[in-house]
Amino acid sequence: MNDRFNQWVKTIQSDIEQALSDYLPDGKSQPKQLRQLNQAMRYAVLNGGKRIRPLLVYAAGQLFDAPATILRPVACAVEMIHAYSLVHDDMPCMDNDVLRRGKPTVHIQFGEAMALLTGDALQAQAFSVLASAGNGDTALNVARTRILAEAAGSSGMCGGQAIDLTSIGKPLSYNELEQMDRLKTGALLKAAVLLGALSGNTPAPEALDALETFANAIGLAYQVVDDILDVTEDTAGLGKTAGKDARDDKPTYVSLLGLQESRKLAETLCQQAHDALGQFGQKAQWLHDIANLVVYRKK
Amino acid sequence: MNDRFNQWVKTIQSDIEQALSDYLPDGKSQPKQLRQLNQAMRYAVLNGGKRIRPLLVYAAGQLFDAPATILRPVACAVEMIHAYSLVHDDMPCMDNDVLRRGKPTVHIQFGEAMALLTGDALQAQAFSVLASAGNGDTALNVARTRILAEAAGSSGMCGGQAIDLTSIGKPLSYNELEQMDRLKTGALLKAAVLLGALSGNTPAPEALDALETFANAIGLAYQVVDDILDVTEDTAGLGKTAGKDARDDKPTYVSLLGLQESRKLAETLCQQAHDALGQFGQKAQWLHDIANLVVYRKK
Repeated sequence: MNDRFNQWVKTIQSDIEQALSDYLPDGKSQPKQLRQLNQAMRYAVLNGGKRIRPLLVYAAGQLFDAPATILRPVACAVEMIHAYSLVHDDMPCMDNDVLRRGKPTVHIQFGEAMALLTGDALQAQAFSVLASAGNGDTALNVARTRILAEAAGSSGMCGGQAIDLTSIGKPLSYNELEQMDRLKTGALLKAAVLLGALSGNTPAPEALDALETFANAIGLAYQVVDDILDVTEDTAGLGKTAGKDARDDKPTYVSLLGLQESRKLAETLCQQAHDALGQFGQKAQWLHDIANLVVYRKK
Repeated sequence: MNDRFNQWVKTIQSDIEQALSDYLPDGKSQPKQLRQLNQAMRYAVLNGGKRIRPLLVYAAGQLFDAPATILRPVACAVEMIHAYSLVHDDMPCMDNDVLRRGKPTVHIQFGEAMALLTGDALQAQAFSVLASAGNGDTALNVARTRILAEAAGSSGMCGGQAIDLTSIGKPLSYNELEQMDRLKTGALLKAAVLLGALSGNTPAPEALDALETFANAIGLAYQVVDDILDVTEDTAGLGKTAGKDARDDKPTYVSLLGLQESRKLAETLCQQAHDALGQFGQKAQWLHDIANLVVYRKK
């Protein structure tokens, strides 16, 4: 981590915050009866989050000189998918959580039915925004839609959630846990990297391979660190309920490997991520820094 | 209604049933832990429904000589959006319904959390399938993605559901009810017509205008007839719980206009739909027949 990177992160975060606000309905252009849904969508997306996925979109896009006019909607689409998944995850029938990013969760604030619709509407909005990300190269636009839809669906994020759901209280092997997390968290992080890369000059196949390796490593590292923070940090520091994996009897890296081995694993994965970027040289500096950010974060 | 039309409907329904099955994960190509999610997705989509939206896609596509290779995935995408919305609508926090198409609803069969994920995964799958509908004309593919995403989201179906939710127990004017239904049911039916039209030779602007008028009329007629059937038919005939609008104290055309005026309205809308198709001559025969099917259906 360094000052230049921190400055870049702040710039992108602020750019994304503005873009997300622009891409979400503000209620003024829609009938007044839609005000509550619009408010709930904005509540779920704005003013919070590390914006790791948008950062990955921008950093990967930079390798191929992707213009901000495309990266911006692409990054917002990925973040909207992430935000909708948090809204639905927090619902009583899933994790039943009351706190997210230090605020009441959407179903606490707006009611369960509205939370369900908010997540549904955000997923649709993500694909609408993604389709708007064009510079005339519609073939790339279609490729990005497929990547995001597959990362979000049953062979990606939703699939991982389903495995998570059916694994509560059951012993999982390390391989099963890894497979679950590759879908649950890894698929969308990988999509962010690939979508960024596919927003500029066409990447060579070996460049895409290297980025996949990078993304797989930080995707897994992200979840390992999440499991570590769940036991080492408190609720105030995390901005979400701490200790809930143990409460919910969920298998995690920490419950499987212990704290020390989990930390070692995160560092090994971080090194794998760095190694994968070799061919890009200095141009991949932000990706290197994001890998460190993921592994050494405190929430 | 006539024999040729009935035969065509059967052919398309059977084609769509097969295509939906092909486009849904079968569990064989995915990890065994995903079996339950895959089963729930198939349960929610297959073996049921009138497939009105796919019929509209095909009938509108035929006006512009759209090939079945494109109409098939486009129709499946629309139907998956419709199916996911039914899964989420039936959940306890929404309509809390136990019966759909004569079978237990998804949350009764698979549990609430799995129903939530099933709907989420079906929406993603819809956009994945839509992106796969190509003949090299990627600009049309992108246009279709935008149309479906907007029809599904906060300015379409989800928006209509949100208005519905916040209107329970409140008096609605006729205009407010119509606006709600234009979003809740009308938006996706209109999208089906437009997506079909945008799957073949580029339609003239006046042709698209006429199809919008047609779609608006049958969209509203669909909901008016739904409200009528809710009071005139029984649960066994409908395959879903009858009488639930009154149970839930929901404003409907019947509660606002009475049964006789609602029937007149449905017939007026049906006539508007027929009139809108004038410019297409005989080529629009299936669309005329679908309008009659919508208005004179028994469930």
